[in-house]
Amino acid sequence: MSSTMTDSPRTMRASVLTSTRQVSIEDVPVPPYAEDEVLVEVAAVGVCGSDTHYFRHGRIGDFVVEQPLILGHEVSGTIVAVGSEVPASRIGERVAIEPQKPCRRCRQCRAGRYNLCTRMEFYATPPVNGAFARYCVIRTEYAHHVPDSVSDEAAALLEPLSVAITTMRKAGIVPGSSILIAGAGPIGIICAQTARAFGAAEIIVSDLVPERRQRALRYGATRVLDPRETDVATAGLDVNAFVDASGAPSAVFAGIQAVRPAGAAVLVGLGSSRMELPIEHIQNLEITVTGIFRYTDTWPAAIHLVASGQVDLDSLVTGKFDLEHAADALESDLDPDSLKSIVYPS
Amino acid sequence: MSSTMTDSPRTMRASVLTSTRQVSIEDVPVPPYAEDEVLVEVAAVGVCGSDTHYFRHGRIGDFVVEQPLILGHEVSGTIVAVGSEVPASRIGERVAIEPQKPCRRCRQCRAGRYNLCTRMEFYATPPVNGAFARYCVIRTEYAHHVPDSVSDEAAALLEPLSVAITTMRKAGIVPGSSILIAGAGPIGIICAQTARAFGAAEIIVSDLVPERRQRALRYGATRVLDPRETDVATAGLDVNAFVDASGAPSAVFAGIQAVRPAGAAVLVGLGSSRMELPIEHIQNLEITVTGIFRYTDTWPAAIHLVASGQVDLDSLVTGKFDLEHAADALESDLDPDSLKSIVYPS
Amino acid sequence: MSSTMTDSPRTMRASVLTSTRQVSIEDVPVPPYAEDEVLVEVAAVGVCGSDTHYFRHGRIGDFVVEQPLILGHEVSGTIVAVGSEVPASRIGERVAIEPQKPCRRCRQCRAGRYNLCTRMEFYATPPVNGAFARYCVIRTEYAHHVPDSVSDEAAALLEPLSVAITTMRKAGIVPGSSILIAGAGPIGIICAQTARAFGAAEIIVSDLVPERRQRALRYGATRVLDPRETDVATAGLDVNAFVDASGAPSAVFAGIQAVRPAGAAVLVGLGSSRMELPIEHIQNLEITVTGIFRYTDTWPAAIHLVASGQVDLDSLVTGKFDLEHAADALESDLDPDSLKSIVYPS
Amino acid sequence: MSSTMTDSPRTMRASVLTSTRQVSIEDVPVPPYAEDEVLVEVAAVGVCGSDTHYFRHGRIGDFVVEQPLILGHEVSGTIVAVGSEVPASRIGERVAIEPQKPCRRCRQCRAGRYNLCTRMEFYATPPVNGAFARYCVIRTEYAHHVPDSVSDEAAALLEPLSVAITTMRKAGIVPGSSILIAGAGPIGIICAQTARAFGAAEIIVSDLVPERRQRALRYGATRVLDPRETDVATAGLDVNAFVDASGAPSAVFAGIQAVRPAGAAVLVGLGSSRMELPIEHIQNLEITVTGIFRYTDTWPAAIHLVASGQVDLDSLVTGKFDLEHAADALESDLDPDSLKSIVYPS
Repeated sequence: MSSTMTDSPRTMRASVLTSTRQVSIEDVPVPPYAEDEVLVEVAAVGVCGSDTHYFRHGRIGDFVVEQPLILGHEVSGTIVAVGSEVPASRIGERVAIEPQKPCRRCRQCRAGRYNLCTRMEFYATPPVNGAFARYCVIRTEYAHHVPDSVSDEAAALLEPLSVAITTMRKAGIVPGSSILIAGAGPIGIICAQTARAFGAAEIIVSDLVPERRQRALRYGATRVLDPRETDVATAGLDVNAFVDASGAPSAVFAGIQAVRPAGAAVLVGLGSSRMELPIEHIQNLEITVTGIFRYTDTWPAAIHLVASGQVDLDSLVTGKFDLEHAADALESDLDPDSLKSIVYPS
Repeated sequence: MSSTMTDSPRTMRASVLTSTRQVSIEDVPVPPYAEDEVLVEVAAVGVCGSDTHYFRHGRIGDFVVEQPLILGHEVSGTIVAVGSEVPASRIGERVAIEPQKPCRRCRQCRAGRYNLCTRMEFYATPPVNGAFARYCVIRTEYAHHVPDSVSDEAAALLEPLSVAITTMRKAGIVPGSSILIAGAGPIGIICAQTARAFGAAEIIVSDLVPERRQRALRYGATRVLDPRETDVATAGLDVNAFVDASGAPSAVFAGIQAVRPAGAAVLVGLGSSRMELPIEHIQNLEITVTGIFRYTDTWPAAIHLVASGQVDLDSLVTGKFDLEHAADALESDLDPDSLKSIVYPS
Repeated sequence: MSSTMTDSPRTMRASVLTSTRQVSIEDVPVPPYAEDEVLVEVAAVGVCGSDTHYFRHGRIGDFVVEQPLILGHEVSGTIVAVGSEVPASRIGERVAIEPQKPCRRCRQCRAGRYNLCTRMEFYATPPVNGAFARYCVIRTEYAHHVPDSVSDEAAALLEPLSVAITTMRKAGIVPGSSILIAGAGPIGIICAQTARAFGAAEIIVSDLVPERRQRALRYGATRVLDPRETDVATAGLDVNAFVDASGAPSAVFAGIQAVRPAGAAVLVGLGSSRMELPIEHIQNLEITVTGIFRYTDTWPAAIHLVASGQVDLDSLVTGKFDLEHAADALESDLDPDSLKSIVYPS
Repeated sequence: MSSTMTDSPRTMRASVLTSTRQVSIEDVPVPPYAEDEVLVEVAAVGVCGSDTHYFRHGRIGDFVVEQPLILGHEVSGTIVAVGSEVPASRIGERVAIEPQKPCRRCRQCRAGRYNLCTRMEFYATPPVNGAFARYCVIRTEYAHHVPDSVSDEAAALLEPLSVAITTMRKAGIVPGSSILIAGAGPIGIICAQTARAFGAAEIIVSDLVPERRQRALRYGATRVLDPRETDVATAGLDVNAFVDASGAPSAVFAGIQAVRPAGAAVLVGLGSSRMELPIEHIQNLEITVTGIFRYTDTWPAAIHLVASGQVDLDSLVTGKFDLEHAADALESDLDPDSLKSIVYPS
């Protein structure tokens, strides 16, 4: 199934989640790569909220860690070997990884919504391993070339930027739009920048913490709000779209009420299986409410936004860790000043 | 502002809601018509749930009956006089009335979403009168010509059919789609027929009452369910769209979970200002949830569906009342066998 | 790569195009099937204009017949063997074949537009064989189950119906639409039926031949025109959409001028590499002009339209031929009374 | 019909087109304003190709100058009087004029496509006057407030920017798109800037003149082409969208062939009533071809793009003229270095 690489390594060092809050450095087999896949030497891996959630709780909803798991799905690196169907000229290429492996055959895949493939194998989602390791494998079409002007860190963070791009698409943000974003964490901050790049004229960010609101102003917000001081639902914000990046039910309930007729609400923040929504407002104003689940076809746009300087990912990095300190990286979100941590496996 | 009609009547008989559960027959002024409006002698008026709600409770949400109000907004009739800008040739024309008067100027009107006009004057919505009266006035472009093959009753019921058409559009129903409809009342039944006319291949209707389920099977349902016997959320229905025509929170919660990835849920049933929704399912499957608020540009399609026999409105009529018995018509929904009552004001 | 079938045949009889206007019956190898493919015993194959064009001219545009080719891409049959990844329960299933094999990996495939895959292998398109043969092979997801109520002939003709469905989607036909179709040949007739099934209220068909116009009236046209008697461009047809199923430049030029503002023109008829269009009309009325190239995700809708009786394909069959008379089938379009010929290879 | 303004002027100076190539300064009545309109003292008026075409030829297609006509439809100014329905607080407001007066009632207006209103009254389109005059009148909703950061000249040039915005919307330009623009005149240059603001990653501009290509590079083009040196049709440009801003049939024919599958071609350049297009390419790649006719709902976005510095209109001004020299302004396009001329009527 996979072609062999001369003198290629058989084992590699990886940070393996063995039980709740336990990661250990282990020598594990280098994963095999199929004829349409590439082997990537990992340069940088961002730490995502889902990584820390698996680390602490061993599950996210129906996804349960039942065997040792390598975390990490925000990944950049360099191609070091290729399957038999991939041009050898790709070896040596710097790439950002779109960490998904859809089945390509189901109804959703055939319709172009491969993010909704029900047979998806996604990095760092049990039982599929991620990239807190020296090497990882991905299909050639999901190893996206990055230009030299994009750093390893930024290339890894194209993954959360892809979340933000998908969000803006679903929110219908076009030049001149107005948007309200709840939450100034990593996703909220990247969403604010992406909204600006999509042409939003008014970008309002709400957050409880003054320092986080100040940060939002540096990353594209045209106005910030403390939701305890401003009643978002009745303040007449009248935005085209509301994006929740907080996961807080109260923020969602109020934010939807700030949307103008025929506008959109996109719920990105996670954490609730059920939530009470202002249904009469949704009905009377014909507001569309939806969520996003990963992404399709976002890396090319993401690379352009970063390479052209419209979105700044490098300055979001607040912590850098080698593989031995992956546990520290996974705990770093407890520091209120932390925004984004990067692990360097190689 | 209005041109005069030679020998036109100055007063007319009308059924006026004077206080809760009190309607009285009164002589009231014939409403004036502007240069772009027509005067219609009313032939038939359907009784809608909103009429009965105003009748019983004196309000719907923020809309409060504070002065005597003429109810009725499902209306057909004949043009008997026209404003100065309207061709006199329209006099004598049988018409179905689209009972709205948007401002034509606001952002929503200019965008083609005149149903969302914030300065809308809508029939039988306080303080705007409806059509339980000998005459009513409407702009010429909202008096839609109906062919002889469409009865007065069907012409009046093009209004709830317009609700169903808007619902199918929002639900994305196209040839081959599957749909779940909760509730087999008048709107559910018309939605089932309209879904069939839009090409739906699978039309599942849920209702608690056996007789109502049987009725649904006669009007387009390909399958019916008792939600106490079949767990809608987990039965693998996997529909493209869910439409709620019940207003029941439990039906909405379960129905959304029956929607396949990238599908739609359209909430038509009213009654709740807030409702708990299965937010994780909405997010993970990228389901779109929205409501509908009236309609735009539906009468031409509605007339075609009825004239071509694809939708049957005549047989939905279970009660006929003259103006003196409008109160009986407004109480008729308490009869479990009642589906749709018609008032004949002339 | 392919699993073996016990006692499966090694060779089969096929009708092979060996040179211009030369087809011969030959024993050829049964094509191998991969793990995700099925082997189908062919029941019925429709003759398409592209088959007759290859037969007569040995090429269509850039596609040139350079080696013996089996024609036929409108196909129904029964699954007789399956690859290792396909459930054995599919053996014995009656199926209609969607005759394409996209690469699944390119940008177009990933976007859900697999019909535009640049590495497509399509039946009866050089050098890929079609189905004028005892057996053919197709991926399991493109072998669509057909119910018993759909005949072998109708199942084969789901392919041109898929062309019509794609056309109606591109033309934006919804309940109440009006459409002008140029040409009452097989595609025009199927388009007229499909327009009706999509809810079109007005279906105008133009054709030079009186008998063909009469036929159109039996298949959904609400009005027919002789373009030599009615000036299509200036007759005030004012349709939502124009569909060309004639390939005649004059019909296209006039038909686009019959489209109302913001309407659509879909060019299905083939034969010209360049064509003069009424560009000022297109610009001033913001008309959208496009073509269609095969189809994506149409078989489920097509099966519903036929099984529910909304589209009649059986009565379109005017000629039936066994494999030995495939040449006669390929010449049958010269008979003006012919509409659709079927070849029965088994 | 119109309310009176105390001490308001009865006459005004205007530049009137009296016959071909003849404009004269005349005292004409100040136009009356209706209750929903405002009177604007004109600050700056851009000269458009349609103005120069009426000046030289007395007609554009079916629009013929049959009585004296005031040209000019790219307009900024200050509100000096308001109709009875408009808040007096608007007096003194700096505005950019969206120079159209749709009927608000027809099918196109009700659908939100007021640009396609068949009863449109548009500035400087016979017999409707434009704004080469001291005052002009516009409905209040089409007098768009401009902030102080936008100059009078830029405010006037929001009109051609609106053409470019409409073009980008029709072309489907989103972050990461690629676009080919034929023609580096005023519209081509504004389109290049607008494409950049809409997020286009690759902006290729073709023009025959080296100086114009250099200019394009200063205004957003990432690459420029001489179409005599590069065969646009076969150079593998593979763009998402082609925009013609040249009106040259050869540029259109080649440009469409540069579009990738499922891409779009938008024809903005005028001058041909009919044009030959590469129809086989359009069909096989399912390319969508359309044109644009004016705009709807573009001024808010345009104001944002200019106020935020994403589009630079000021530096496009190459000539400034007072009302007495309007004829010189109308001839200025003969100077190859000229890009955009402004007339100052006050």
